[in-house]
Amino acid sequence: MAKPPGARHLEIGQPFTLELGGALPCLEVAWESWGTLNDARDNAILICPAFSAHCHAKSSSKDPSAGWWERMIGPGAPLDTDRYFVFCASLLGGCHGTSGPLSSNPEGDGAYEGRFPLVTIGDQVRAHLALVDHLGIDCLYAACGGSMGAMQTLEMGLYHGERLRRVIAISGTDRTRPATAAIRHLGRRAIMLDPQFQDGMYGDTPPFAGLELAREIGTVFYRSQKEFNHRFAWEPAYRPNLNGPTFEVQAYLLHQGKKILRSFDSNAYLRLSLAMDLHDLHRHGTELSRLAERVDNSYLIGGVTEDRLITIDEQKAVRDGLLQGGAHVEWFEISSAVGHDAFLVDVEVVGRFIAAFLEA
Amino acid sequence: MAKPPGARHLEIGQPFTLELGGALPCLEVAWESWGTLNDARDNAILICPAFSAHCHAKSSSKDPSAGWWERMIGPGAPLDTDRYFVFCASLLGGCHGTSGPLSSNPEGDGAYEGRFPLVTIGDQVRAHLALVDHLGIDCLYAACGGSMGAMQTLEMGLYHGERLRRVIAISGTDRTRPATAAIRHLGRRAIMLDPQFQDGMYGDTPPFAGLELAREIGTVFYRSQKEFNHRFAWEPAYRPNLNGPTFEVQAYLLHQGKKILRSFDSNAYLRLSLAMDLHDLHRHGTELSRLAERVDNSYLIGGVTEDRLITIDEQKAVRDGLLQGGAHVEWFEISSAVGHDAFLVDVEVVGRFIAAFLEA
Repeated sequence: MAKPPGARHLEIGQPFTLELGGALPCLEVAWESWGTLNDARDNAILICPAFSAHCHAKSSSKDPSAGWWERMIGPGAPLDTDRYFVFCASLLGGCHGTSGPLSSNPEGDGAYEGRFPLVTIGDQVRAHLALVDHLGIDCLYAACGGSMGAMQTLEMGLYHGERLRRVIAISGTDRTRPATAAIRHLGRRAIMLDPQFQDGMYGDTPPFAGLELAREIGTVFYRSQKEFNHRFAWEPAYRPNLNGPTFEVQAYLLHQGKKILRSFDSNAYLRLSLAMDLHDLHRHGTELSRLAERVDNSYLIGGVTEDRLITIDEQKAVRDGLLQGGAHVEWFEISSAVGHDAFLVDVEVVGRFIAAFLEA
Repeated sequence: MAKPPGARHLEIGQPFTLELGGALPCLEVAWESWGTLNDARDNAILICPAFSAHCHAKSSSKDPSAGWWERMIGPGAPLDTDRYFVFCASLLGGCHGTSGPLSSNPEGDGAYEGRFPLVTIGDQVRAHLALVDHLGIDCLYAACGGSMGAMQTLEMGLYHGERLRRVIAISGTDRTRPATAAIRHLGRRAIMLDPQFQDGMYGDTPPFAGLELAREIGTVFYRSQKEFNHRFAWEPAYRPNLNGPTFEVQAYLLHQGKKILRSFDSNAYLRLSLAMDLHDLHRHGTELSRLAERVDNSYLIGGVTEDRLITIDEQKAVRDGLLQGGAHVEWFEISSAVGHDAFLVDVEVVGRFIAAFLEA
């Protein structure tokens, strides 16, 4: 829960205005890269992280630990570092080195904590583009992301279309539905009901119980019923009781909850969660098809039949809106017991679609 | 959160043994009825309540407030009180007048609270049958229930088959799947993480925050994505913020959470929730089809395509197991945006199947 050890640090000493109001006095971006930027600076692929991810998408000599998309990136991998300069920046509003609640408050009394402002997917994309500018890249070869990362790539593709040629958006959405906002609400409630939350000013005693439960709730939606029913025993694994798990699946959820405590800050959780709920490409009153008419980049849209967080119908809505606007769209739907998390787990399957799209 | 005001009270002063161990020194059952038991005592229909329900299924002169299945019961209604003696008992382990955590602890120091033992669906059915015995009924015309009520009717139909001729089980299951246990785990965690929970010995200061959140979590699964996306605005209804709702659907969930505080006890919530997770008709190592071979009652099995708590596939598994065992089975699948809660809301649609089955 800090800047990944191998990350580079970019600081832009100018006010960074925010879509919902206010500004940060400066912008910090933590980022990592793999492969080499060519002289024409036209072989760059930006990875946009999902909610729980960060700039360490892949191991490197500076940080040999496995990244969250380890097998997606590398020589001969779908994001082929023999050909592309692949880079990834931690998210604005998160807790992995880019400006967020753990950053120093310029007012001079420690970290922002609960005083960090609300951010949007649009803000996060402008933070990514500040890094793209810093690298002297006019136009990305591609931007690639899943889930919250796909919200960012779609935002970039349609609102900053001249900055990228190819948009890869897996299991994202054009616009968060109430049914999905309902789910994210539950996780935020879990954190904020924890008495240790203290309006976000929790210092060294974070609302760990709430954060754990938020993660347990999330895990149920990130995966699928099919997976749970195949993976876990149907009979009680322990003597029936209320003080600990009775079923194997409970032990799994408890473990997932505990795991996030090492890597995530609750104030960041809240801000990233609400940013996803507020994601709406139509927010300026413009249909997706009209947005697509204005740009000439191409799109890979795909998702998972079993996704219970962001349904495959939403992927179809994105695809159809883009097609109506005359965009070039490639499409896939896969069946995966992993559900929403397939882009993180079924890397070979998803990677084949990505590689083919990047070739085209 | 007590015995419904019109309920009658049965007390059986003998030890009531429990499936998971231990015994209650006596059994109390709160119940209500509508219509008249005939001389042959063969026109009785038992309603088995779902998780959040109780014996007040229908208004009466003693309690004119609407019951939870008001339109299902009455003269000319699917459970036709011109023909049937319809009765309903609150659940063992619950908080509506039948023995549960709010009952007096025979050890003499107030209510049981967190010391009330764990109960099973099998225990609840034996408590229902104690009432059936008390009424002098050898064989019910039918037992009818949805969700947790359907678990009870199936348990009664297959383990006490001589006590009823017809089994109506809507949106129940033969055996709780890990994917459903995962969901109920979340609600129990919400309650038990509340610092006011105090191992269930919370007296007059219950873990209201945890209970609210448990209900909010439940509500997301009791209803469907389709309903939320049609019913609620997609744009923020309030200025984006973390201190209150931003979206209409959040305000709805918060309201649902608040509503349960008046009607439910957290210790009861935990016990009923775990009882559902432990529900397993196969628990003695016997296939459903073999259980069905031993009885000769008939079954109405049905469910909802959009159910995200107990999937329609589970209804099909129950149907197919019963059919393999040679049982007479009638079947329905309905599409309803209400999802799992359809048996409570789409009463006319569900009631038509029930009425036809009772006629046959």
